[in-house]
Amino acid sequence: MKFKIALIGAGNVAWQLAPALEDAGHEITEVYSRELAKATEITERVYAAEPKDDLDFSESKAQIFILAVKDTAIPEVADAVILPEGSILVHTSGTMPLDILGYSSASFTGIFYPLQSFTKGKKIDMDEVPFLLEAEDEEVLQKLKKLAKSLSPLTFNVRSKDRKAVHIAAVFASNFSNHMIRIAEEIMRRQGLDFEMLKPLIIETISKSLQIGAKKAQTGPAVREDYETLEEHVKFLNYNEQVAEIYRLISQDIIDAS
Amino acid sequence: MKFKIALIGAGNVAWQLAPALEDAGHEITEVYSRELAKATEITERVYAAEPKDDLDFSESKAQIFILAVKDTAIPEVADAVILPEGSILVHTSGTMPLDILGYSSASFTGIFYPLQSFTKGKKIDMDEVPFLLEAEDEEVLQKLKKLAKSLSPLTFNVRSKDRKAVHIAAVFASNFSNHMIRIAEEIMRRQGLDFEMLKPLIIETISKSLQIGAKKAQTGPAVREDYETLEEHVKFLNYNEQVAEIYRLISQDIIDAS
Repeated sequence: MKFKIALIGAGNVAWQLAPALEDAGHEITEVYSRELAKATEITERVYAAEPKDDLDFSESKAQIFILAVKDTAIPEVADAVILPEGSILVHTSGTMPLDILGYSSASFTGIFYPLQSFTKGKKIDMDEVPFLLEAEDEEVLQKLKKLAKSLSPLTFNVRSKDRKAVHIAAVFASNFSNHMIRIAEEIMRRQGLDFEMLKPLIIETISKSLQIGAKKAQTGPAVREDYETLEEHVKFLNYNEQVAEIYRLISQDIIDAS
Repeated sequence: MKFKIALIGAGNVAWQLAPALEDAGHEITEVYSRELAKATEITERVYAAEPKDDLDFSESKAQIFILAVKDTAIPEVADAVILPEGSILVHTSGTMPLDILGYSSASFTGIFYPLQSFTKGKKIDMDEVPFLLEAEDEEVLQKLKKLAKSLSPLTFNVRSKDRKAVHIAAVFASNFSNHMIRIAEEIMRRQGLDFEMLKPLIIETISKSLQIGAKKAQTGPAVREDYETLEEHVKFLNYNEQVAEIYRLISQDIIDAS
């Protein structure tokens, strides 16, 4: 099943999605951005899409309209966009509920959320991106599923309530594990040591964690309940009270969870 | 420079080191374990090493004795082992100081610490393992450097004081980032959601973090100072006060560090 698709927004997500959708056999009809030059950056990446800086899509041939703008801009753009009869409007946000599209002129609404960290300019293998889908209308959900499946085998139906849990889990697994690496970088820099020496350990740890599960993969002083080392480490960290407290609290949670 | 080497201990580190050292052209003379069967498990992985369950190495032809036992067993085994004249005794611990070998019968002592998480049975590419080296005697340090270089290009001279900082940084980068994944697993399980959908994001995040640095790689509600989302997330987590507090504290630290 091939679709005609318009992209509303010209950020990282649109930059990644446009060529991937075309490669999967769909047709990109238009790309909207407030700045025409930004829309053009994306239309140049596909065969024959029209760049637009106005939200009047009444003449569009697209069936699915993918709203890929910042979370905070979603309500405003969704309310302003003029869509043709029968159109499906989906947003790509992991945090916004479905009903945020409720006041739009779309006949149907849904969520088409690629759960991945996109960086403009760095191509992502779309077939390794999980797509989290939601729609009230069953037929619409099936269409979104077909669209997602044409990009990636990893598609999941996730309701808004559960998508919030996914987002919180992602904050821990992604933002917070990244911050743990940030703190490690700081400790090394402060001591004049080369952070490079920690990289192989990080790669091995994460790969082991994803293979056998984080509980089994855990090592270190906390899971060994090596209180002497824990105390020494907290003492070492007392130049930064907050980081020392993070050390203490996570160690306690590792002990409690084991 | 090829060495004759005895391994004292038959755990994960010895299991990995023995064949790697032999592949690099060195000769494994003996492997000690309190249980002879465990020593034999390792001597069977190399050409002609003798398994031993006693600590009398006075007749050994080895020049370097690698003490690869649990941290807590190091002082006892180091004190008990009988070594020939001129021998170098090194331990493989990231946490123990050099002077813990001070009462041994070794002529020289050092540290030969492979900074990696070893799992028995899962072969590690030794040429991607960083070796952290220390010795008081400059000639001994040069020998350890040659030994390490024969296994891996990643060798670092790190004094005991600095090795503690490395260990603390490793706790953050490895144990704590693994625990963040653990918490994410729990949130998903509690909600009946498939953890698989988070794996691509984790892999992309860590790889981006190691490529461009964790500060630049950071995303999410904390670095955006999206207080509304942060508050919602803490509220969601109130079924586990400690995890909610971890969320709050790390988010604050991300805000403070940005």
